Amino acid sequence: MPPLFISLEGIDGSGKSTQTARLVNWLEQQGRAPLRTREPGGSPGAEEIRRLLVEGDPDRWSAETEILLFTAARRDHLERTIRPALAAGRDVVTDRFADSTRVYQGATRGELRGLVDRIHAAAIDVEPDLTLILDMDPELALSRGLARDSGEDRFEDFGLPFQQKLRAGFRALAEEAPERCVLVDASADPDTIAATLARITASRLGLA
Amino acid sequence: MPPLFISLEGIDGSGKSTQTARLVNWLEQQGRAPLRTREPGGSPGAEEIRRLLVEGDPDRWSAETEILLFTAARRDHLERTIRPALAAGRDVVTDRFADSTRVYQGATRGELRGLVDRIHAAAIDVEPDLTLILDMDPELALSRGLARDSGEDRFEDFGLPFQQKLRAGFRALAEEAPERCVLVDASADPDTIAATLARITASRLGLA
Repeated sequence: MPPLFISLEGIDGSGKSTQTARLVNWLEQQGRAPLRTREPGGSPGAEEIRRLLVEGDPDRWSAETEILLFTAARRDHLERTIRPALAAGRDVVTDRFADSTRVYQGATRGELRGLVDRIHAAAIDVEPDLTLILDMDPELALSRGLARDSGEDRFEDFGLPFQQKLRAGFRALAEEAPERCVLVDASADPDTIAATLARITASRLGLA
Repeated sequence: MPPLFISLEGIDGSGKSTQTARLVNWLEQQGRAPLRTREPGGSPGAEEIRRLLVEGDPDRWSAETEILLFTAARRDHLERTIRPALAAGRDVVTDRFADSTRVYQGATRGELRGLVDRIHAAAIDVEPDLTLILDMDPELALSRGLARDSGEDRFEDFGLPFQQKLRAGFRALAEEAPERCVLVDASADPDTIAATLARITASRLGLA
């Protein structure tokens, strides 16, 4: 079985980081050698770009400049981390990829989705083999998300109505790209979610 | 007469910085209020992105990632510096704009020109009203350019054959976009060049 490129997506506080770690752990238990990574960041250059994005005044960049910076970081992440790992036969599990940019920017201003897609087509043009979308009520996600001190609360600051738009965006995306996206109920307990993600991944890998 | 957006372009050592300063000085003498700026950079955010581009290992970014970073910096420069100045009725004179990215990346790998143009069309989609291309023999330019300690010698390091490709790229651009580009002989002495640039600009401004 060739290596799988997997992304986890979802609103803030939906448990992506925890579930990314658990899925990587499960893949290791299957005798595979997964690489765990995340966006924005995931390579030394992309982490530098990430600092420009997550630090400082939330209004320091326009949405359009942010899209270019996210895409620059993604290109570096893809070239320096994701592609080499896949080429070495390793599965890659990333906490966020291009769908986050599509959904967050689209929720900010609907017309930005077109810009995200055009720049993605020009400079990235790769999608994960499997995208696991952790879907849950934003009120529940917010109560969990804000309990953590992520230190990168630009998006978390936007509040409940914005998180509701994000949820709708991720659900719409799952309908747009059903061949790679699977919507998972993330209101369940972490063990149940982890088991669901493992079962979906096992099926994609052709494991019993 | 509405304000004019002017860029100066040309290979390293062709005298862009000197001539940018002289053109700004001439515009002030005409009673105008020009803004002098430069790329990469020209706004606080773009200067931060510039640091990522000009510092560190020359191979730290792929050409594709560089194009995205240059365009992100340009978008910020356009939003925060160029457009507000033009809106306030000020001429803008910039030392480099999008043509530099087109020509440098195109000289590095010809097929990159298409990527530069696609990302420019998606995210910038503005050209200067007037682009003054300082054209000269790269051997002469290199001898002048390397005499300065610019502290940003990534491109200057590439040597003579690369500079010859750049010259050819700028000359081709002048033919592609004759409505805004004027090729100026930059092997002349600085006073003669400054007088030529002033004459061309005066003509565009409808000054006697």
